[in-house]
Amino acid sequence: MSEVHVSRRARLRERCAAQDGPAGAALVTRPANIRYLTGCAPAGPAALLLSPEPRDVLLVPPGTAVSVPDESLRGCVLPATGGEPAVGAAELAARAGARSLAVEEHHLTVARHRALAAAAPRLRLTGLACAVEQQRLVKDEEEIAALRDAAEMTDQALGELLESILVGRTERHLALELDRRLVDHGAEGPAFPTSVATGSHAGIPGHRPTDRRVEEGDFLSVCLGARHLGYGCQVGRTFVVGTAPAAWQVELYDLVFAAQRAGREALLPGAEYGAVDRASRQVLEAAGYADGLRTGVGHGVGLEIREDPRLCPAAMGKLDACVPVTVEPGVHLPGRGGVRIDDTLVVRPQADGGPELLTITTKELLAL
Amino acid sequence: MSEVHVSRRARLRERCAAQDGPAGAALVTRPANIRYLTGCAPAGPAALLLSPEPRDVLLVPPGTAVSVPDESLRGCVLPATGGEPAVGAAELAARAGARSLAVEEHHLTVARHRALAAAAPRLRLTGLACAVEQQRLVKDEEEIAALRDAAEMTDQALGELLESILVGRTERHLALELDRRLVDHGAEGPAFPTSVATGSHAGIPGHRPTDRRVEEGDFLSVCLGARHLGYGCQVGRTFVVGTAPAAWQVELYDLVFAAQRAGREALLPGAEYGAVDRASRQVLEAAGYADGLRTGVGHGVGLEIREDPRLCPAAMGKLDACVPVTVEPGVHLPGRGGVRIDDTLVVRPQADGGPELLTITTKELLAL
Repeated sequence: MSEVHVSRRARLRERCAAQDGPAGAALVTRPANIRYLTGCAPAGPAALLLSPEPRDVLLVPPGTAVSVPDESLRGCVLPATGGEPAVGAAELAARAGARSLAVEEHHLTVARHRALAAAAPRLRLTGLACAVEQQRLVKDEEEIAALRDAAEMTDQALGELLESILVGRTERHLALELDRRLVDHGAEGPAFPTSVATGSHAGIPGHRPTDRRVEEGDFLSVCLGARHLGYGCQVGRTFVVGTAPAAWQVELYDLVFAAQRAGREALLPGAEYGAVDRASRQVLEAAGYADGLRTGVGHGVGLEIREDPRLCPAAMGKLDACVPVTVEPGVHLPGRGGVRIDDTLVVRPQADGGPELLTITTKELLAL
Repeated sequence: MSEVHVSRRARLRERCAAQDGPAGAALVTRPANIRYLTGCAPAGPAALLLSPEPRDVLLVPPGTAVSVPDESLRGCVLPATGGEPAVGAAELAARAGARSLAVEEHHLTVARHRALAAAAPRLRLTGLACAVEQQRLVKDEEEIAALRDAAEMTDQALGELLESILVGRTERHLALELDRRLVDHGAEGPAFPTSVATGSHAGIPGHRPTDRRVEEGDFLSVCLGARHLGYGCQVGRTFVVGTAPAAWQVELYDLVFAAQRAGREALLPGAEYGAVDRASRQVLEAAGYADGLRTGVGHGVGLEIREDPRLCPAAMGKLDACVPVTVEPGVHLPGRGGVRIDDTLVVRPQADGGPELLTITTKELLAL
C-alpha cells in the first residue's frame, strides 16, 4: 500500500499549495483521515503534518506503539514531546519554515486550536475544510476489495445465525453471537454496534439490544457489519420467527422491499444524492408511511461506517462510479414492530451492469 | 435519580452565574457530561442548554429516541429543528434573553463554534472550561454502588474464564468470550475494548487481541471491565499458563505486584496525584525498569473509563475521598512478555479502613 499512501498525500499537498502557497503546511487530526493517508491507526490522538519539505511526520502520544505499513513513513513516526501531537506538529511546522498551517476545523476543538496558535504564534492558521473526506469519497479497487471481503464475512456470520435456534434467546445474546461469528470469519470486529431487535422493537433504526427474548410470530430485524483492513460494511435483514408470517407482516415487508429496490435501482453515476433518497421515499409515502425514512435512505461507507455521501433530501451532489453506499429504508409501527432492509452496494455505470451488490444474503422474507 | 440531576444542574448553574452574571447561559455538549447532568444518553450528538430561566432543554438530532429518567426534563427533550443540536441551543439561548453562552471549548470543534457564533451573533461566547468534569470527580454513594456492581460483574466474568481450558485458543476469541460473560452477568457491555495478550504480547498496555494462540508456559495478561448504568471499571491480571511459572516469571510478577501494592497504599485523601504515581514508579525504577510506567500509574473512572484525576508525574492536585481510580503498573520485556496488574479502588480515609478495593479477583500468580 506504500505507493498508494504516498500518492494520496501528494494529492492533498497539491491542494494545500494551491490554497496557501508553497510555504503552507497541513495538519490532519481526524483518525480516519490519518489512516487513509498513512495506513497507520494509532491508538491515541495523533497528528499528521504535511510540511513544505517532502518529509511528512506522524506525531503520536508518547508510549504509543504504531505499526507503519508505509515505507515512506518509516522513521517519521515520532512521539510528541509535549504529549500533545497537534501542538507538537504546529511547532514542527513553524521550525520547518511554514508560514501557514491548514487544520481540520471540523475535528479540532476550540481549546486545541488555541493551544496551536499559542505554540506557534507566527503561523497563520487556515482551514483544510473536508479535503481529505472528499478524497476518500471515490474508492480504488483495493478499497472496494476490502469492502467486498468485509461483506462476505458479514453474510457468513448472518447465514450461520439463521441456521440456529432463535426462540427464547435475548437480543443481547444474539448480538454477541453475531459479533463472535464475525471474528470467526476473519473480521477485525464489528464495524458498528450490532443491532438485534425483536417483536415491537423490530425495525427501529440503531436499536440497542435488550434482554427481550425472541418469541414465535415476532419480526426479528438484525443489522451488522464486519470491519476488515479498516473498512466496514453494513447489512440489515428482517425475518419472521417460527410460524408463517401474518398478512400484515407480509404486506409491510413487501412495501419496504419495494422501497429498497427503488433506492438500489437509482444508484447510478450522475444520480443526485437526493434523488436516490426520493426514489425510496416515494414508495413508502405512497403507502402512507411518510415518517418511514427519517434521516435519509443511506450513506457512504469506508474507513468510517457513516461517511459521505449522505443520501438524504438536503444533500447536494451527484454520485460517482466506485462510491460504496448503503440503501437502508425501514418502517417501524410503534407497539407492533417493523421492517428494515440494508444493503451495501458500489455505484457502477450501467455499461458495467449497474450497482454492484456486496451484501448478498437473501432478501426473501424467511420464516425461521 | 431525578433530584440528583436537578441538583447537579443547579450547581453548574450557580458556577455559571458567578462567572457570567445572571444573563449567562451554558451549553454542555460532551456526552458523558450530558449523561451526568440529565441521566440521558442520546445516540447522536446532543446539546444541553442551561439558560437563565429555570427550564433546562436537551436538544437532540431529529429522529433520536431518548429515554428520560429525570422527571424535571420531561417535555424538555426536543429535536433540533436545523438538525444541529448545538446551533439550535445557541438560537434558543438568544431568544430566551441570554447575553452570553459558556461552551465546552475542549469538546466543541472550531467549525461548530463558528456556526454557533453565526447563528446567534448577539450572544457572547465564553468558556465553561472543565466545570462539569470537576463536578464529576468526587462520586456520590449511588455512583460508587454502580461501580461496585460493575466490578462484581467483571470479577465473575474473569473467574469463569480461569476455570476453562485456555491452551490453543486465540487472544481474539478469549476476548470475545469475556465480553459475552460480562453481558451474561448483567453488564451493558464492556467499558473499553477487552485486552487479552499472551506470550510476548503479555504486559503490553492496551494490547489489541490478535490470532496468537495461548501456549504452555506463556504469560497471559487480560484487562477488562463491565459498564453498568453507564459506569465502567477496570481489572487487569496476569497468569502463567499450564506449568509452574519459570523463575524469571515469578521474579517479574513479584516486582509488579510490589509496585502495584505501593500505589494502592498511597491512595489516601490529601495525597498528591503525582505521589501515588511515584510510590509505584520507585519500586520499578529501583529494579531497573525505569520505562515500566510510561504514562502514569492510573486514572479516574466513572462515566468515562479514563477520566480525571490522572495519576502521573505531571498531574497537579490532591486526592479527595470518594474518588474512584485505577492502579495499574506493568512491565513489558520486548520479545519475552510481561506483567500488568490493574485494580479499581475508591479513595477512603484511613479512619474508614483506607482505600476500598472494588475488583477483588485474586492477585496471586496463578498457574492455569
